[in-house]
Amino acid sequence: MHAITRYFPILTWGRSYDRSALSDDLIAAVIVTIMLVPQSLAYALLAGMPPEAGLYASIAPILLYAVFGTSRALAVGPVAVVSLMTAAALGQVAEQGSMGYAAAALTLAALSGVILLAMGLFRLGFLANFLSHPVIAGFITASGIIIALGQLRHILGISGGGDTLIELLRSLGGNLGQINLPTLVLGGLATAFLFWVRRGLKPALRGLGLGPRLADVAAKAGPVAAVAATTLAVWGLDLGARGVAIVGDVPQALPPLTMPDLSPDLVGQLLLPALLISVIGFVESISVAQTLAAKKRERVSPNQELIGLGAANMGAAFTGGFPVTGGFSRSVVNFDAGARTPAAGAFTAFGLALAALSLTPLIYYLPKATLAATIIVAVLGLVDFSILKRSWSYSKPDFVAVATTIAVTLALGVELGVSAGVAISVLLYLFKTSRPHIAEVGRIPGTEHFRNILRHEVQTDPAIVTLRVDESLYFANARFLEDHILDRVTRDKAVEHVILHCAAVNEIDLSALESLEAINQRLSEMGVSLHLSEVKGPVMDRLKRGHFLNDLTGRVFLSQHEAARALQSPAAPDETRGRAPAPDNKGGI
Amino acid sequence: MHAITRYFPILTWGRSYDRSALSDDLIAAVIVTIMLVPQSLAYALLAGMPPEAGLYASIAPILLYAVFGTSRALAVGPVAVVSLMTAAALGQVAEQGSMGYAAAALTLAALSGVILLAMGLFRLGFLANFLSHPVIAGFITASGIIIALGQLRHILGISGGGDTLIELLRSLGGNLGQINLPTLVLGGLATAFLFWVRRGLKPALRGLGLGPRLADVAAKAGPVAAVAATTLAVWGLDLGARGVAIVGDVPQALPPLTMPDLSPDLVGQLLLPALLISVIGFVESISVAQTLAAKKRERVSPNQELIGLGAANMGAAFTGGFPVTGGFSRSVVNFDAGARTPAAGAFTAFGLALAALSLTPLIYYLPKATLAATIIVAVLGLVDFSILKRSWSYSKPDFVAVATTIAVTLALGVELGVSAGVAISVLLYLFKTSRPHIAEVGRIPGTEHFRNILRHEVQTDPAIVTLRVDESLYFANARFLEDHILDRVTRDKAVEHVILHCAAVNEIDLSALESLEAINQRLSEMGVSLHLSEVKGPVMDRLKRGHFLNDLTGRVFLSQHEAARALQSPAAPDETRGRAPAPDNKGGI
Repeated sequence: MHAITRYFPILTWGRSYDRSALSDDLIAAVIVTIMLVPQSLAYALLAGMPPEAGLYASIAPILLYAVFGTSRALAVGPVAVVSLMTAAALGQVAEQGSMGYAAAALTLAALSGVILLAMGLFRLGFLANFLSHPVIAGFITASGIIIALGQLRHILGISGGGDTLIELLRSLGGNLGQINLPTLVLGGLATAFLFWVRRGLKPALRGLGLGPRLADVAAKAGPVAAVAATTLAVWGLDLGARGVAIVGDVPQALPPLTMPDLSPDLVGQLLLPALLISVIGFVESISVAQTLAAKKRERVSPNQELIGLGAANMGAAFTGGFPVTGGFSRSVVNFDAGARTPAAGAFTAFGLALAALSLTPLIYYLPKATLAATIIVAVLGLVDFSILKRSWSYSKPDFVAVATTIAVTLALGVELGVSAGVAISVLLYLFKTSRPHIAEVGRIPGTEHFRNILRHEVQTDPAIVTLRVDESLYFANARFLEDHILDRVTRDKAVEHVILHCAAVNEIDLSALESLEAINQRLSEMGVSLHLSEVKGPVMDRLKRGHFLNDLTGRVFLSQHEAARALQSPAAPDETRGRAPAPDNKGGI
Repeated sequence: MHAITRYFPILTWGRSYDRSALSDDLIAAVIVTIMLVPQSLAYALLAGMPPEAGLYASIAPILLYAVFGTSRALAVGPVAVVSLMTAAALGQVAEQGSMGYAAAALTLAALSGVILLAMGLFRLGFLANFLSHPVIAGFITASGIIIALGQLRHILGISGGGDTLIELLRSLGGNLGQINLPTLVLGGLATAFLFWVRRGLKPALRGLGLGPRLADVAAKAGPVAAVAATTLAVWGLDLGARGVAIVGDVPQALPPLTMPDLSPDLVGQLLLPALLISVIGFVESISVAQTLAAKKRERVSPNQELIGLGAANMGAAFTGGFPVTGGFSRSVVNFDAGARTPAAGAFTAFGLALAALSLTPLIYYLPKATLAATIIVAVLGLVDFSILKRSWSYSKPDFVAVATTIAVTLALGVELGVSAGVAISVLLYLFKTSRPHIAEVGRIPGTEHFRNILRHEVQTDPAIVTLRVDESLYFANARFLEDHILDRVTRDKAVEHVILHCAAVNEIDLSALESLEAINQRLSEMGVSLHLSEVKGPVMDRLKRGHFLNDLTGRVFLSQHEAARALQSPAAPDETRGRAPAPDNKGGI
């Protein structure tokens, strides 16, 4: 691909843009705009920012992503988990509602932008892979609970807050006496309505005779209806005077030009949170983008996506926003509404700019409880404990990683939760590879196949021990192999040859090479020779660079069959060992 | 093995102890004692401890190791690298020479003891494997330089010090004006003599007609001769009055009973250093023990070795010592001198106790420069940059790990050096496995073997793509595989079947399973079916627990040959692709 079109995907799709694409994109933009106005306000509330920041964070970032991003349907802006992480990070450096808080949000967005751009330019997108699927699932579930509990106080009309399960429960419990009844009624009705919209509105509209597409669009407008109805109720019944918290004055303006504060102190405090936000945001975004692209047999480029998201966050930093990423629900709506190119995003940005210019006076009386209801209904859809069951039945290490992530996120907060998830997955993986499966193999009678003597009925020669190591050999398991082989041979004085069957050895590092040298030396002192079979090309290439192959007391065989044939003692007949294969072992070797 | 004899190896070898073993052990003990007196004093100086602490650290620990250790020749006590790490750790909590410093040394030894015992009881010996051989080699080389430079001031008779290369060079440069000539002459002569002892004394003694064994013993006494000669010189020429630093008063007593200070503050500060000291000490000790055991076809038990070393460090903590481990030079001397059981260690301890009781007045005039010379000559033997060359030619990631370890140790000190070494090895390993080698394979004509199309001349069917993944599939490479396969298939519209050849896949974790499900789903949307071949037993067992095998659009084949035969389109003849194998590829697959 040409370098310029690689970094500016807009040059590729822009060239073939036509009227039919334009009309599809316009329709999608209208639908997404209607959905995004309440959602942007709500996620601003979740991030602890003023409501207009949610709109600002959706305008410039969408435009910049349209220029640099590779997904045709991805819609960027504030999303639930990243907004929660933003609130957690900013809470450590400033008081919510203060000038410093909003300023630090710009810094956080700028740092995320720089980190994402750097990861994209240096092609470090693979780093995100260290967040395993189960860890992400556990993290999102735990975050959803934290978010929903945190918003509950807006529904109850009480004060308080917290970053962890215990803090939140204690704060809710301690302030229950403050419950504001009008807020609770309004918030409760809005929540119930939104749950119904999610589950029951579309079938109901279809029942009334609406076409499927129109029913879909109308269902997306559910939150707007809740916003309108509760705003009217507050205004008409003067509920503001009865203690219902409202959004209040929102500036009627386009996004301002802002300059993030990059003082070393603030940057130092926000760097790690920005890194975590960037990685989590990228993982969420790329998953959505790849899922949607696959449906049209298109591909997204992970490293260019990093650049697109980095540009979007830089946009947020310079226009009064806060960290953004590609959101799941908004992107799916965009895709389902028929968006064909990133131009749909640009039209959405235009719609949101219109809203920021003209609609803000209308939301003066909008109760915060309605926004909280929007958030709660959205995030409870993310809470899914089935990953615990799935991982438990599939693999215990995965289960441990998920359970740790959920427990730490709930108990100690989002930043430690996601860090603990990554750390424990890596440690468990290293632990597994440090104690590799080593099978002793023998020949299945009448074939050239060599199988585990514990799983199959095989023939072996008492003078030959063949060990198949099911792992790359590297520093963490080098000594384990040494111990295993020497233990095996010290026990059995009949052994004259040890064959290492290397078909599953993808790498031999210098530590492992030194262990092999030591094994060769020690076996040689015992009068036993060491052979290798089925060594892979790349591994063999590397072994040739050292003197190991010259010192090797035995030989290197192309195939295990050849090795066994060459070393077989003609006098001693094969003995049959092992057991018949288990009936459920079909397909395994 | 019976539980009691497992934890008390003394019960095994003690039962068959006889007169011939006794006489061998006694001879070895005499030789080792002669060697250990100056060495213990010197390493105490290196650790910043009073000289007698070096003797104390060799008495109780040797006795306890004799009870709990499994190596028959290992000699524990203060060693160079651990003494340096001790000085670095204690320097952060107290001033050298203060009461607090010696007290903190007891705490450090106690913490090391607890850590080693815990690792042994919980069978965590494998953790030491994360220190790769090249990292250890680099670390010891860099430590040797730091130690030698640090001791140079005792030879020059100047003050100063430091933990890093730059600090040490700056301190030496800044204080050069203070050089004390008598000290320099004495220290220089001692150093030159000890180098000659190391290289030339034994051949010279053989030339004088001594038998090889006697020449060997006499050469070991070289340091004692240097100690005696320089002590006499200081006494006779009254060099103490001319500024030569001397050892001075050393208590004439058996090791005292001491109680380590376990206040939470001090423990908190010393915990991490104690962990690093424990791991480094264990790795050094186990390497020596295994090397010596192998020479007699014996085995040491790594987890029991941890218990032996833990007990030794507890002994040091309660008898006025500092952290100890199994030393290379003393163990080799013990082995070469003919030690047959740990009883030799017990006799050595007796000899050292005698020395502590009777010899200490004799070393009042011993110049510190002589001890520094002993250290410098010993550690320069450890400095070996050849690991840089070896790792460069064998594998670049190993080279990066070694170079980083050496650079960080020299620039930032021992603790960061060894931590950086472990961290970078793990990261490089994860990086490698996150981008696995994936080979497209085809059948070598006339055989049932399938090889890389880039390395061999093979036959393929245009409708079938067979990919051999040379790595376990886990979270870090799950997405890579997904990208690789979808890129390959999207490019080539002729493909109808994708076969994943899994002989080198030792593990499929839940993330990878989800990626496989996604690959299966997306290929299915493109009308391409996914098959697996040569799946290993343990991997297959696990796959059966999920619903992946039910959803799989293709089949699971026992062998790749069977898969290719079953899927081959009879109409389209095989096309020959790839190239002839390179002539240097013999033995590789």
